[in-house]
Amino acid sequence: MSLLVVGSVALDSVETPFGKVEDAVGGSAMYFSASASYYTDVRLVAVVGQDFPQEPVTFLEGRGVDLSGLHRTDGETFRWKGKYGFDLNEAITLDTQLNVFGDFDPVLSEEYRQSDVVFLANIDPTLQLKVLEQVENPRFVAMDTMNLWINTKRDELEKVMSKVDMVVINETEARMFADESNVVVAAQKIRELGPQFVVIKRGEYGALLFTPEDVFFAPAYPLEEVFDPTGAGDTFAGGLMGYLARNEKFGHHEMRLATIVGCVMASFDVEKFSYEALVDLDRDKIFNRFEKFRKLTSFGELSLIDD
Amino acid sequence: MSLLVVGSVALDSVETPFGKVEDAVGGSAMYFSASASYYTDVRLVAVVGQDFPQEPVTFLEGRGVDLSGLHRTDGETFRWKGKYGFDLNEAITLDTQLNVFGDFDPVLSEEYRQSDVVFLANIDPTLQLKVLEQVENPRFVAMDTMNLWINTKRDELEKVMSKVDMVVINETEARMFADESNVVVAAQKIRELGPQFVVIKRGEYGALLFTPEDVFFAPAYPLEEVFDPTGAGDTFAGGLMGYLARNEKFGHHEMRLATIVGCVMASFDVEKFSYEALVDLDRDKIFNRFEKFRKLTSFGELSLIDD
Repeated sequence: MSLLVVGSVALDSVETPFGKVEDAVGGSAMYFSASASYYTDVRLVAVVGQDFPQEPVTFLEGRGVDLSGLHRTDGETFRWKGKYGFDLNEAITLDTQLNVFGDFDPVLSEEYRQSDVVFLANIDPTLQLKVLEQVENPRFVAMDTMNLWINTKRDELEKVMSKVDMVVINETEARMFADESNVVVAAQKIRELGPQFVVIKRGEYGALLFTPEDVFFAPAYPLEEVFDPTGAGDTFAGGLMGYLARNEKFGHHEMRLATIVGCVMASFDVEKFSYEALVDLDRDKIFNRFEKFRKLTSFGELSLIDD
Repeated sequence: MSLLVVGSVALDSVETPFGKVEDAVGGSAMYFSASASYYTDVRLVAVVGQDFPQEPVTFLEGRGVDLSGLHRTDGETFRWKGKYGFDLNEAITLDTQLNVFGDFDPVLSEEYRQSDVVFLANIDPTLQLKVLEQVENPRFVAMDTMNLWINTKRDELEKVMSKVDMVVINETEARMFADESNVVVAAQKIRELGPQFVVIKRGEYGALLFTPEDVFFAPAYPLEEVFDPTGAGDTFAGGLMGYLARNEKFGHHEMRLATIVGCVMASFDVEKFSYEALVDLDRDKIFNRFEKFRKLTSFGELSLIDD
């Protein structure tokens, strides 16, 4: 199935305890597309400025991503500057320059309007809604969001949430949105707005998938070298949505698998700066990491013989 | 196998967002014994003052815990006062009164010296060492510790670590001890001091078990009502060590199961204040929760058909 993503393509300046990069290629739609491209056909909607380099464009084209929705306009590309502290779990935003993203008003092509699966990455909920309204008959829609929109565009955000099948959100932001410390209750409150599925992203602690039936606890792979967590959440969402679109099923069984696929892809992403780790994956590398994930949480039968 | 635990039996005053209790019965050895008593014969070494109530003593006796090592001396019982904030993940210590614990100098009976499995709960490493030296030929020894001893008794702590098979430690304290943000590297640094196994406790995120072969990611059960996390770590250790002692095996396979049993017991503990939730468990309740844990992390086979 075709998978449409709308989000940012950006230039990130990132500092981690292990190094720093200036104007590295990033953005939610960039990471998402690179990740999802290993599973299905991706259509990207985003905007960049004249300063955006050609290399990532060539890379995505090479991976079969449809870039007819990537607009290049006068002005500078969206820039994010952030740093990670000792525990790498939370980014501190040092600077955000919207630039060409400030006037972004996406109009979908006829082909894009027929997309089956849609991911509304973390952008202004007004834009998310605008894109969603143009898609004619989507089979499955998911969205992400962040503290900024929770604080400034609550009503629009709730409106988008009411129209999607799945919300993918960071744990801190889920708690903030629901004004509730307990993550199970927070997820429940989000589900009450409409979405059947809620995925809570927990960084190095993995992810929780809440469905109408139960909860799934997906681990993160304990890596000896986490180099740069930037984009891990979007890479996760790309794997998850890519897997769903590929298999054309949206039931309980597939959701669990798709969540693990998301964790697998995120575990690659954090090993290198920018989208570097997503450049040369293949079926073998993905299967191998997937099997490591299975081993990570498997255990035998309880033996309480003489009880 | 017989399981010896040395630790604190205390009176805790705890405040959570859901309520508060004054002088509730607690302490590492209390939670540990109550939990482990569902699996094996426990021998307790601790000290309380004349003010310690009879009810918990009667409870532990009823559960078959050997209390001949529970000394009652003149003075007041060890007291801890703490509170938990919004996310319940970290306790803030408001007050600690060592009282009778300040002069505790445990001498083991002949029977206690023959114990097979030993848990050195979180107390002064000098005391941990003193107890361990009295046990003649233990099959398996584990220990816990905390920031206080990391900061004030580093040398003694490293000496105890070099003599045990397993270190069970909170994530924050593992990072502090190893002066290392990456939890995989931190665990590795602890393993280099001697212990084959390191278990990192992560509160609501579960636990990581590091063995000479690999890593095991144990989930925590996502509960809608976490009432009071006090004692969860010791209840976890009680389940883990109790299961190992019961099955008399200390290999890779049993370690994973024992870690899940620990998580199962901790998931009960947090549902009520003090040790209340550990009073009336049984085989059925434990098995049911264990199967919920299995379901929590299980997923199917990857399907990448046309790749």
